[in-house]
Amino acid sequence: MSATNSELSHTDAHGAARMVDVSDKQPTSRTAVATGVVRTTAEVVGLLRRDGLPKGDALATARIAGIMGVKRTPDLIPLCHPIAVSGVTLDLTLQETEVAITATVRTTDRTGVEMEALTAVAVAGLTLHDMIKAVDPAAVLDAIRVDRKDGGKTGSWTRPGDR
Amino acid sequence: MSATNSELSHTDAHGAARMVDVSDKQPTSRTAVATGVVRTTAEVVGLLRRDGLPKGDALATARIAGIMGVKRTPDLIPLCHPIAVSGVTLDLTLQETEVAITATVRTTDRTGVEMEALTAVAVAGLTLHDMIKAVDPAAVLDAIRVDRKDGGKTGSWTRPGDR
Amino acid sequence: MSATNSELSHTDAHGAARMVDVSDKQPTSRTAVATGVVRTTAEVVGLLRRDGLPKGDALATARIAGIMGVKRTPDLIPLCHPIAVSGVTLDLTLQETEVAITATVRTTDRTGVEMEALTAVAVAGLTLHDMIKAVDPAAVLDAIRVDRKDGGKTGSWTRPGDR
Amino acid sequence: MSATNSELSHTDAHGAARMVDVSDKQPTSRTAVATGVVRTTAEVVGLLRRDGLPKGDALATARIAGIMGVKRTPDLIPLCHPIAVSGVTLDLTLQETEVAITATVRTTDRTGVEMEALTAVAVAGLTLHDMIKAVDPAAVLDAIRVDRKDGGKTGSWTRPGDR
Amino acid sequence: MSATNSELSHTDAHGAARMVDVSDKQPTSRTAVATGVVRTTAEVVGLLRRDGLPKGDALATARIAGIMGVKRTPDLIPLCHPIAVSGVTLDLTLQETEVAITATVRTTDRTGVEMEALTAVAVAGLTLHDMIKAVDPAAVLDAIRVDRKDGGKTGSWTRPGDR
Amino acid sequence: MSATNSELSHTDAHGAARMVDVSDKQPTSRTAVATGVVRTTAEVVGLLRRDGLPKGDALATARIAGIMGVKRTPDLIPLCHPIAVSGVTLDLTLQETEVAITATVRTTDRTGVEMEALTAVAVAGLTLHDMIKAVDPAAVLDAIRVDRKDGGKTGSWTRPGDR
Repeated sequence: MSATNSELSHTDAHGAARMVDVSDKQPTSRTAVATGVVRTTAEVVGLLRRDGLPKGDALATARIAGIMGVKRTPDLIPLCHPIAVSGVTLDLTLQETEVAITATVRTTDRTGVEMEALTAVAVAGLTLHDMIKAVDPAAVLDAIRVDRKDGGKTGSWTRPGDR
Repeated sequence: MSATNSELSHTDAHGAARMVDVSDKQPTSRTAVATGVVRTTAEVVGLLRRDGLPKGDALATARIAGIMGVKRTPDLIPLCHPIAVSGVTLDLTLQETEVAITATVRTTDRTGVEMEALTAVAVAGLTLHDMIKAVDPAAVLDAIRVDRKDGGKTGSWTRPGDR
Repeated sequence: MSATNSELSHTDAHGAARMVDVSDKQPTSRTAVATGVVRTTAEVVGLLRRDGLPKGDALATARIAGIMGVKRTPDLIPLCHPIAVSGVTLDLTLQETEVAITATVRTTDRTGVEMEALTAVAVAGLTLHDMIKAVDPAAVLDAIRVDRKDGGKTGSWTRPGDR
Repeated sequence: MSATNSELSHTDAHGAARMVDVSDKQPTSRTAVATGVVRTTAEVVGLLRRDGLPKGDALATARIAGIMGVKRTPDLIPLCHPIAVSGVTLDLTLQETEVAITATVRTTDRTGVEMEALTAVAVAGLTLHDMIKAVDPAAVLDAIRVDRKDGGKTGSWTRPGDR
Repeated sequence: MSATNSELSHTDAHGAARMVDVSDKQPTSRTAVATGVVRTTAEVVGLLRRDGLPKGDALATARIAGIMGVKRTPDLIPLCHPIAVSGVTLDLTLQETEVAITATVRTTDRTGVEMEALTAVAVAGLTLHDMIKAVDPAAVLDAIRVDRKDGGKTGSWTRPGDR
Repeated sequence: MSATNSELSHTDAHGAARMVDVSDKQPTSRTAVATGVVRTTAEVVGLLRRDGLPKGDALATARIAGIMGVKRTPDLIPLCHPIAVSGVTLDLTLQETEVAITATVRTTDRTGVEMEALTAVAVAGLTLHDMIKAVDPAAVLDAIRVDRKDGGKTGSWTRPGDR
């Protein structure tokens, strides 16, 4: 992905949606890292922190939902290929008024796993929103984006500093 | 939801996750509106606009994915109740370097549909990301939030101006 | 449905797909009957018949797949409402070179169950095709249609003789 | 599949259903093409045609539903193997009183993709039925069948002219 | 269920599977409690106990999987009705060489929720097995059963002492 | 698995859940056999036996549900990898007051299929419970366990006699 395209790859010359044929691509080891953030209040972060006691499941619920979301990606994103996911980690970091989310997804397959990593972040963020919405209905899920990807024909891509 | 809680409702006194019992709530008509935005480039917005010709499926794919996402919400968000969704609209508006997403979800059931509306926005945004990522791998899905909800015991809630 | 519409109900004035709002409709008892047929060879029908011995699972597999298909309908058909299905029967009748399929679906909800009955027939037919394709790869799934529906505001509808 | 079997492969000697063991087969490139047709009225075809304006989502909805149906095939058809689908196209052609559906599915895996192509056609056809049923409740989904398959140990198969 | 039947309700007079018609039953408040146990080693229970520190997700993962399993019940059990689940709790208790599992499921619908409670126990138990299998591949999931149910036409049922 | 671990592999050093990275493992042929038993009454076993007539679907329903359960394993068990299942058999044996369940699952992939075999047994057992619960609400699903596994780096494992 060092060279980007100038056409939408998921629609054909007439604009019709399709699942792009990747039969000719070779399975290779690939990784994608995506991030996002739930912006909320200091009160909510305090509740999540206190929940960090034995049996405190709030962060675990979001983490597990995000990991399971990876496996649902081809069911949710219409033109995504089903992928043999080989590993997922999902980190949640409590900050003053925010929860930062980072998902890392690995595969050995014919396409990249950016969508899987982005879906993990989105589902973990939605799950946090669900758990805190009785306290802070105005929470915002923000800045869901790919930070870096490795592997595949086009090699590594790192998010440019000005985006 | 005019009065918010000061506890996480989805974990019990020991912090264990649970699906909150809503047996005693009455089914009432409820609506939620959520919004979000995909920040990309003028080039991508131009491609999406040109796609707005006969058979141009890019925006339709995102719209349909978002509507279908509503129905997958209880499968994705661990502690969400299954809901009898009675109507969904999903609007996509092309702006200079952005696509604005608005989802409106209606139900007649025992719980609100904020999570369904937020999930619709997130899945539509992820689907747009999937379709434009070959052109703009640095696109960002931003500002996913509830704008307004109506119905239920607590009545209407509108996003405060300072959030 | 005694009076039919002259517009596509699932797209709005601008052609955008939506899940039609049925909040104002009352839950009522409704039934739909759909039929279809798998056209194959006398040899295959013979194999299916012989399979009708103790533990012969071929017809049972199709019957169960059809019943389960009813429950997957809103996941498959993008603009279908999720429905509280209250009963399903699925009949398979062996004829000379065909298997006739009839599905009857019942609900007490706000929308009809034609799509659920049609999906049951289609999934049962596809499952039969899967099981017989090693013997007859040219089998055809034909004539999937609604035969009759009852209940709801518009009352009963029976398939006209000339269709 | 130039040579067909004389036994139902999906049931064992006692008639019990099983998922056939394909461990010893090699992953090879495979393609299947399936077709079907929705028989309706000239009025409906006219509405679908007019819908072919910017933002007209009716055909797109069916196309996307069909493509997503490919990925749900092993969930719907009990004895189908899960498959690494590598490409899908789904064509819809408006004719005088019909919509013709053609699905092409590609994989590099141990089994063929006829069931995936047939499922794409069936789900696209059911979705069309859903969208037109308010105007034409008597529409029929017809002639769902495999037209051709390539790849795998048995090589190419083309539908015989007399079926 | 104080009076039990003497026929299998899920097959008709000819033995064919069906989803029993419950259209005539009234939605009422219902509860079911199911239990089960994972028999393992003292070493594993020690590891799970130590995991009971901040961020220790092992028990949370099983608890959440069980709660999510409730919502998947009609997808897994072919003849189960889809149900409006209104509440779920899932308790895990560490004993000397065992983990005891108790699931409580509530609904206001036309059928009972025994299958949902049993599925919650089974999925939580399978998830525990998955997490401990590298240490104890010989763990056993045992004694999955309904302990008590309330509500519905037949009233309460409590497990007899001799079963 | 001749050598077992002394740590829970599915949580990291801080106890956070993760899907373990298997990118470096090679796809190899693997098999797992799991068993379980539904303990019920002689009356129920008699009904199931009588059901073993033409079109008697009760055992077939459980068998098919178990086979389909294999394909749902990664959706149910949060940290399980998605797997290319290449074959499944599921045997049900009627005994005096019990139904014995044996599932055999095969794959050629990077991880073992114990969880898939255990899930097949659990889902078949739950399905039997569903079908007999009107006659015997006190039935118990017992002794779900791995009996043997073959393939993969650690070679074969057979259940020790004292467990």
